Amino acid sequence: MKRPWKGQVEKPSEKKVQAKDLNNPLCPGAVRGNGEVNPDYKHTFTFKNDFPALLEDVPDPGPSQHPLFRSEAACGVCEVMCFHPRSDVTLPLMTLYEINEVIRKWSERTLELGKKYRWVQIFENKGEIMGCSNPHPHCQIWASSFLPNEARIEDRSQKDYYRKHGVPMLIDYVNQELEMQERSVVHNDHWIAVVPYWAVWPYETMLLPRRHVKRLYDLNDTERASLADIMKRLLTKYDNLFEVSFPYSMGWHGAPTGDMEHIENSHWQLHAHYLPPLLRSATVKKFMVGYEMLAQAQRDLTSEQAAAKLRELPEVHFMEYNS
Amino acid sequence: MKRPWKGQVEKPSEKKVQAKDLNNPLCPGAVRGNGEVNPDYKHTFTFKNDFPALLEDVPDPGPSQHPLFRSEAACGVCEVMCFHPRSDVTLPLMTLYEINEVIRKWSERTLELGKKYRWVQIFENKGEIMGCSNPHPHCQIWASSFLPNEARIEDRSQKDYYRKHGVPMLIDYVNQELEMQERSVVHNDHWIAVVPYWAVWPYETMLLPRRHVKRLYDLNDTERASLADIMKRLLTKYDNLFEVSFPYSMGWHGAPTGDMEHIENSHWQLHAHYLPPLLRSATVKKFMVGYEMLAQAQRDLTSEQAAAKLRELPEVHFMEYNS
Ligand SMILES: O=P(O)(O)O[C@H]1O[C@H](CO)[C@@H](O)[C@H](O)[C@H]1O
Ligand SMILES: O=P(O)(O)O[C@H]1O[C@H](CO)[C@@H](O)[C@H](O)[C@H]1O
Repeated sequence: MKRPWKGQVEKPSEKKVQAKDLNNPLCPGAVRGNGEVNPDYKHTFTFKNDFPALLEDVPDPGPSQHPLFRSEAACGVCEVMCFHPRSDVTLPLMTLYEINEVIRKWSERTLELGKKYRWVQIFENKGEIMGCSNPHPHCQIWASSFLPNEARIEDRSQKDYYRKHGVPMLIDYVNQELEMQERSVVHNDHWIAVVPYWAVWPYETMLLPRRHVKRLYDLNDTERASLADIMKRLLTKYDNLFEVSFPYSMGWHGAPTGDMEHIENSHWQLHAHYLPPLLRSATVKKFMVGYEMLAQAQRDLTSEQAAAKLRELPEVHFMEYNS
Repeated sequence: MKRPWKGQVEKPSEKKVQAKDLNNPLCPGAVRGNGEVNPDYKHTFTFKNDFPALLEDVPDPGPSQHPLFRSEAACGVCEVMCFHPRSDVTLPLMTLYEINEVIRKWSERTLELGKKYRWVQIFENKGEIMGCSNPHPHCQIWASSFLPNEARIEDRSQKDYYRKHGVPMLIDYVNQELEMQERSVVHNDHWIAVVPYWAVWPYETMLLPRRHVKRLYDLNDTERASLADIMKRLLTKYDNLFEVSFPYSMGWHGAPTGDMEHIENSHWQLHAHYLPPLLRSATVKKFMVGYEMLAQAQRDLTSEQAAAKLRELPEVHFMEYNS
């Protein structure tokens, strides 16, 4: 952290986002790439991505000839979910009721797509620096016929721990963090957000229910309301850190679905990862390059330092405070 | 690849790099952060990083209290190696002789640091987009008392394959690629560069010797000269792709050293990875975000498409051609 920085500096986005722009394909009433007109939605709006990375029907590549060259068909669907009719708001600026609508929709889509697919990945790329190409608040949902790599690894680690200790790993973990306090950022009766012990991104956090919950749709009404509360508090702290709409990629992980829904999944604990790229300021990011790509993550600050910094920040958004 | 792109566009570097700038701590004759004056070097120049990420002496964190919270001391050294006295050249613009000097130095530092440390990671972050904070052509060498994650995984995969098939995995792989041709970019008598079958970055390549070689310092004179040749050809193609000094992170992997030098390492094959971030043009990169971070890499083009594109490009550098 003491290194002088003469490298790349991100330019802060100069574009002032308009509340409504009929040229923006995510706005109510706008025309999308495929010619469809969006409804005049009031809360969330979900539709199939016009440029999907996964297709429902794909050809079988046939048997492989060599152990080093193996391919398999991978199918799925890609959806986009708008969080709010206005383009100029983000989750921390939305009301608890509005955030709750997003959470309800997340549960609903997971349940629905999970009937057919093994893995339903909800993720949000927030900010241009995270490759987000549209300022309108939204996330994506990619459901696939296979467990993606990260899911497979989490499945294996949680299973190993469960076999050895008879308790879900992340339940043990949550209890330890609640007791130790030093990496916890914010918590309420049902949730905790911590900078994980193993964090690699500077202000990375993990958001977990305090009781054993396997999937988003296993949350009850109280837990959903409580999730809206902790999300608003965590994301407000994030925005307050550098007084900027804080960029990140986030996503939910829970027990597999589809034909894996009813196999033994007690080792799974629902959780979200928040992975923000900023390191020193609103314009200087952490570069995950050379050593990180080829060897191992190198941490510029400790999890405890990051957690302490986030913990101290106010829970009133700097934009609401200033206005 | 058909998606419209309205997201972040990198600004091309406007700074014209001067051949020599005494304010640049990597130039011959310049004063560095620690007050030392650089020698008037003619080829390469290597020194200890003034802001090292790894330290030679570190405290022992003591025993851990819980299986989920385990830390170990990690020590090492960080060096910086300048490739050339001039700041305005890059490897593809250097002569074969000069590139050979870099390769000789790489071998020498690996041998030297490998006496004490298990892993010697040579890597180059090229371009501002890859977090490189100094335009002077240089790489870094971080030697560590432990095998970093990527090294551990490569060690395990190569060992498993060797046990099962009795041949080093990457030797089998090289032979397959030489035969199939479709992913090979360039080769000569001793080396091959391919877009690997499993590539995740758009124009990712892997550079390997055709015979079984475990470490950089096991290369003979002919193989080093031949490596200079293939590096110049590959990196010229890279620069010609978007007519820009092509950014990437690259690094060398070979059998472990230090107290692991003499254990059974026949499964290891020396190789370099080149991981470039650009996707569509000199200013639009591939964002490894949301789905990639939380699930699995999503490929925007196939290895075969990338290899074909690189193969077709001329081996005369666009700047030499234009002048
Ligand atoms: O060592 P540098 O050039 O200051 O720093 C660069 O390379 C390091 C090693 O890959 C990374 O950890 C840094 O994030 C990056 O900015
Ligand atoms: O789907 P988008 O927003 O066009 O694209 C963004 O998210 C995808 C999924 O994380 C990535 O593969 C793309 O590189 C990124 O630009």
